[in-house]
Order: sequence, then C-alpha cells, then structure tokens
Amino acid sequence: MEPAHVLVNSVYGASINSADRGLLYGHGLFETMRLFDGQIPLWPLHLERLIEGASRLHIPLDGGRVQADCQQLIRHMPEDTGILKVIVTAGAGSRGYASPVNQKPTVVVQFFPVPASTEFPVAVQLCRYRLSNNPALAGIKHLNRLDQVMAASELNVGEYGLLLDVNDHVIEGVSHNLFALIDGQWQTPLLDQAGVAGVMRRYLMETLIPLCGVDVKERAMTLPELLAAEEVFFCNSLVGIMPIAELAGLGIWKKWPYVEHLRKRLVELHPCYDV
Amino acid sequence: MEPAHVLVNSVYGASINSADRGLLYGHGLFETMRLFDGQIPLWPLHLERLIEGASRLHIPLDGGRVQADCQQLIRHMPEDTGILKVIVTAGAGSRGYASPVNQKPTVVVQFFPVPASTEFPVAVQLCRYRLSNNPALAGIKHLNRLDQVMAASELNVGEYGLLLDVNDHVIEGVSHNLFALIDGQWQTPLLDQAGVAGVMRRYLMETLIPLCGVDVKERAMTLPELLAAEEVFFCNSLVGIMPIAELAGLGIWKKWPYVEHLRKRLVELHPCYDV
Repeated sequence: MEPAHVLVNSVYGASINSADRGLLYGHGLFETMRLFDGQIPLWPLHLERLIEGASRLHIPLDGGRVQADCQQLIRHMPEDTGILKVIVTAGAGSRGYASPVNQKPTVVVQFFPVPASTEFPVAVQLCRYRLSNNPALAGIKHLNRLDQVMAASELNVGEYGLLLDVNDHVIEGVSHNLFALIDGQWQTPLLDQAGVAGVMRRYLMETLIPLCGVDVKERAMTLPELLAAEEVFFCNSLVGIMPIAELAGLGIWKKWPYVEHLRKRLVELHPCYDV
Repeated sequence: MEPAHVLVNSVYGASINSADRGLLYGHGLFETMRLFDGQIPLWPLHLERLIEGASRLHIPLDGGRVQADCQQLIRHMPEDTGILKVIVTAGAGSRGYASPVNQKPTVVVQFFPVPASTEFPVAVQLCRYRLSNNPALAGIKHLNRLDQVMAASELNVGEYGLLLDVNDHVIEGVSHNLFALIDGQWQTPLLDQAGVAGVMRRYLMETLIPLCGVDVKERAMTLPELLAAEEVFFCNSLVGIMPIAELAGLGIWKKWPYVEHLRKRLVELHPCYDV
C-alpha cells in the first residue's frame, strides 16, 4: 500500500531528490504513528525520539517544523484516523559520506489508512536472520533497516517474527518490542547493542506499567529465559499490546491474564488501541 | 557536489518516489565507477557485484537494464571522463518491511565530474567509530551506510579514515579497502563479518597482484599486525592505489617500493589511475 497523501518539505507531492542522503546512505530517521480522531496518542514521545535520533546522526532538525508538517497533513486529510509516517533525512548532499556544511533536512509526512484489526493472541516465528550489533546505532529508529527487510523476507504474509542478535540475545520483533513476565517481574530486552527503542515500549516502561503498581527491568535476555516466561507480549505504537500465544516449534503460552490487564489499562487511557 | 546529470529509470530527471524502499529502508545497492574516455575500466566487476548484491537482498535486477542506462547517460554527457554512480533499489513499496510481490527495481545513474587529484602518500586517521558486524550483510555495497556516515563525521575535509569493527579487527578505510605487506606477504582483511568488498580490491587480488608474480592472503587483521607491516596502501576504483605514509599517532611508513611497483603496473594497464 503506497501512501494516500504525502507532504515533502511542506509541499504536497510524492517526489524527493535522488541526491537525498536518506536514499544515498540511509542518513535519516522515521516515526510511524497512530492517528486517531485527529490526534497522535504518543506524539510527545515520537517527537522526542526523532529529535534525539537526529542529534545522534548529526542532523540539525527543527522539531517545530516536523510538528507543523504533521498538522498540515492531518488538516488536509478527509479521514482523521489512520497512520502517519514521518521520515526525516540529512537532505540532499554530495557524493561522499561526509555531511554537507549547510545541511537542509528533508521532512516527508505520509498518510496511510488504518490497517485491518489484528486477532489476538498471535503466533510468532523465530527468524533465522540475526540483528547486527552496534552500540553507536542501537536504539535509534534510523533508515538503515536492511536487518528488518532481510528478517521479514523469511515470513509469510501476516506472520510475526522474533529477532535475536548476532550474540544470541533476544532483542525484539521485526516491527515490535517485546516484554516478558519472568518470575513475576516484567522484563524487556536491553537495547544497548541492537534493536529499536520503541515509543510504546517507553510509554509502557515509564508510565503504564508503573501506573499498574509494578515496575519493569531492562536486561539482556536469552531465548531459554524467554521460553521460561509466564507471559509474553509484543507492542508498538500502531497496535498497542499484543499477547503472544506461541513461539512456533519452541514454546506455548496458554493464558495471559497479566498482559490482558495491561492491555485493558492501555485501552482505557488510549481507546485507539482497542483493536 | 550534486550530480550534474541524472537518469532515473531511463528518464532524465532528479526525482524519485518518496515511497521508494531505497529511501524507506536502504533496501538497495550502489556502485561508484570511474569513467575514462567513455569507458568504465572495471565495468564487468561492478556489474557482477551489483547483480550478486541484488540477489542477496532479494531484488530482481536486470543487469542489461543497468548497462543500457549507464550507456545512455554516457552518450548524453558532453564529457567522457568523470564518475558514474549507479543506485539500484527494490523500488516503490508498501509501509511494511516485507517486499511487495511485484517488485519493480529503481535504477538511478548519476554523473559527477572527476575529483581533484590526490597527493601521495596519504596520512590516515584511526576512527573511533566501529563498524557493525553482520555476516549476512558483510561485503555487500548496500545503501545502509550509516557506519560510514558516522565515521566520516569524525574527519576534517580531505582526511582519510581507517575503520576497525566492534571486535577490534582492522577492516577498511571509510571509502577504501586496505592491503598490507606483512612479512613479505600481501594481505588484506577478510570481509566476512564487516566491510565492503571493493571492486578494485577484487581486481588487485585476482588479477594485478598475481600478474606481478605474487599472491594475496585474505585474513582477519589486528591493529598491531597492521602497524608492524612493511608497507600499506588504500585502494578503490576511483583512485586506484594510494600508498599510506602514516596512521596518525600510531605508525609511520617511510618507503613504499612494493606499493609503487603495483601502482605502476596498474597505471600501465589502466592509465586513468595515473593520478
């Protein structure tokens, strides 16, 4: 599905310069956001991550400009519910890897219709593909996403994939972060070597799970530890919380009462995640 | 320097679709090639690498189309000497990581004027940034080049950088491969975990160095091994062979007779590398 409406540097149109460093080197970032009743539920977290990522990639990003472009596209859309994707790049550049002195970042905002509802719980495949390890790029939602493209190529349409890194640690889903209830404690993989630190992951860790009176531990997680977990779920800012019933051929979770408790609390606060 | 002339899918023009998977995920490849007297010296090796890379990234590339587009741009140019850059992507796609069923690859060909001559020998800085390790992507000249962008951001204009990987192995320059004469044996880093397997590197290993009556060993290389080398050089298909006189603060090479011998042999066979 190609985007229904696109804004490139505040102008309607679907084209970008073929000398854009986003294309040449993946020198940029993106956010994929739920739009619901004209609002983006976790907007402050999305914007904060974008600004933090731009700083790590040396892109002089004006957050106000991103916000204005998102608002412009939202006002323009006949629908007020769907998905908004923002791509920010270092802008058009030279042939070499070094950034130009006067970077003019490119901001692309795309609208997509809301996808079909997901049926819970989900079954997940363990991908053979392993995530690259690099502390300097870990956590950032940058445009170098061949890892996810290669992993997704192992899956059939509608299948979900779980990814380990090259050091055998459990990291995340292809498009989701992961939480596991292990010995009564919510845990989520540490993302200091690989993975994307999702906005929903942060919201759950910092706000929702503490609201439920418990806390979350971020730590390196192995596959045997995950398989021994009482309950497991995927999350992202498009679907919210998705309980996992099976890691194909490796593990089965028959009940997920604590996941369901979190999911209900999330839906109370953000009704768009009642999928 | 932005490209002087650009062909996108056989049509003159500088724009690509903002839904192109090259922009969205870096799902694509590139080649940067020397153009001299209307010819690309190592063309068969460039095309072979592009086709091999496309196969590894599941892009159904027609090599004949790339060749035709390059020839079209070369015929169109008033100059017959410069740099030709080809970018191949998986084409416009959907929002998700999975490739569309009917991929239509995008082919971009850009012309750049030949850069100013390089003065030999060169001094090289050791970059603090470390290359990601991933056997599934190692060697391919794909569009996920944040590693090189981040490393280049440490360098001043005109400086050359040497890169180690996260496991402390010597891998390559920011835009060059590396060869070292160690105990009288030409060696070049093994690129099975990280790095880009350059076309000039392959030409030197398979053709030029054997023509000189010696062979090359590909192996994991540490920094102390490199510093103990008798002679060291960088190479790529734009400049040919560049002797290295210094790794700043770490090592000095005062003479490079064997490098000069290789360089002269290369220039005899390919005069464009007489820089």
